[in-house]
Amino acid sequence: MMERRLLLVSNSTAYGGSFLDHCQPHIGQVKRVLFVPYALHDRDKYTQAVRAKFSTLGYEVDGIHEASDPVAAVRKAEGIFIGGGNTFRLLKSLYDNEVVSEIRRRVLEDGMPYMGSSAGTNVATVSICTTNDMPIVRPPTFAAIGLVPFNINPHYLDPDPKSRHMGETREQRIAQYHEEADTPPVLGLREGSLLLVEGDKATLQGSTGARLFTRGAGKDVDEHNPRNN
Amino acid sequence: MMERRLLLVSNSTAYGGSFLDHCQPHIGQVKRVLFVPYALHDRDKYTQAVRAKFSTLGYEVDGIHEASDPVAAVRKAEGIFIGGGNTFRLLKSLYDNEVVSEIRRRVLEDGMPYMGSSAGTNVATVSICTTNDMPIVRPPTFAAIGLVPFNINPHYLDPDPKSRHMGETREQRIAQYHEEADTPPVLGLREGSLLLVEGDKATLQGSTGARLFTRGAGKDVDEHNPRNN
Repeated sequence: MMERRLLLVSNSTAYGGSFLDHCQPHIGQVKRVLFVPYALHDRDKYTQAVRAKFSTLGYEVDGIHEASDPVAAVRKAEGIFIGGGNTFRLLKSLYDNEVVSEIRRRVLEDGMPYMGSSAGTNVATVSICTTNDMPIVRPPTFAAIGLVPFNINPHYLDPDPKSRHMGETREQRIAQYHEEADTPPVLGLREGSLLLVEGDKATLQGSTGARLFTRGAGKDVDEHNPRNN
Repeated sequence: MMERRLLLVSNSTAYGGSFLDHCQPHIGQVKRVLFVPYALHDRDKYTQAVRAKFSTLGYEVDGIHEASDPVAAVRKAEGIFIGGGNTFRLLKSLYDNEVVSEIRRRVLEDGMPYMGSSAGTNVATVSICTTNDMPIVRPPTFAAIGLVPFNINPHYLDPDPKSRHMGETREQRIAQYHEEADTPPVLGLREGSLLLVEGDKATLQGSTGARLFTRGAGKDVDEHNPRNN
């Protein structure tokens, strides 16, 4: 049994420079990455863009939608990257293509490196119940791949005291989630933050920090918030 | 068969003054309003707040959760108001309490006046697929009460060219919805706007306007946008 190795990024457009800088030590000896473009409608275009970025560092990219057997593609992958877009569309496609349990097995048993950005970060957690996305399609369940025992809210936004917008703040939305029974902790991952998971250890990287919300807790923990310095 | 009469409001905190001003001509001779507080966790507190507001205009308010038989409560209601909160929680409770088809029948056949704010506006439409809320619970379907043949995005926010936030704009999220097959038009209802539906006629009220998005259309229509004047 190998240790799990995850790199979970807040931003959806995180296949740029700084994301790749973090990927390199993370995926180490990996030469080919299996890319999952299910979160966007145009899978070919999305894969081309990611392929171009990864090629600058010498990685080959295979689009999972290009494989005749997606489960077999996961079974033989050296590393996997699930990109951002719409989380509902992504999770539904993961179930439609029956790859959820194989991805879980490869990451938790074989230690296959997993990289996710935005929606790809959401689906790595317990459930997609703390996504910011519109429910444009309905997956068979909100339970996700379950690679970590908590949820993440990507693109976490702090409450803006100057805002006159009447929609709920992100904090209020997460509090509503925690009004429901048996809900796991939620990590509000600000843009610019990444969570590196190695075995049972999670390390926050990047400069913007995160907030951890737990059900029924009196106080939330704000990790590495530069504004606290 | 009576004409349908709906008052659909963008804001969730719309049981204040201006909302009630619009309610009065809408519900006319109605003396008692059935309030549906399912979108918030604390139904008693929510009902008390709404009851206090409506009492200033001389309306009695019954909370649907106070009735031993919610379907019977809908059957005998003079008018109904579904309040805002979390749209997923609201729709799930409407189905759990088996009131969806009875509300539809009373509005479409009996002309029972319907008032909705935010989540209560979402559930009046074709589906909740264009809500802004977090999917904190999973309803048995995303199909909603279906009182109008389109969807609404409440709290509609125009793209902010100055924003550095990397999450999708509301416009992009609605465009992603329209990438899916057989999706109805979406009315982006800005805060401060209300849609009055009388029979087959819909009238936009308030000062902020709305944007209408249709699948595959080359151009969106911006109705009553004060910035166009």
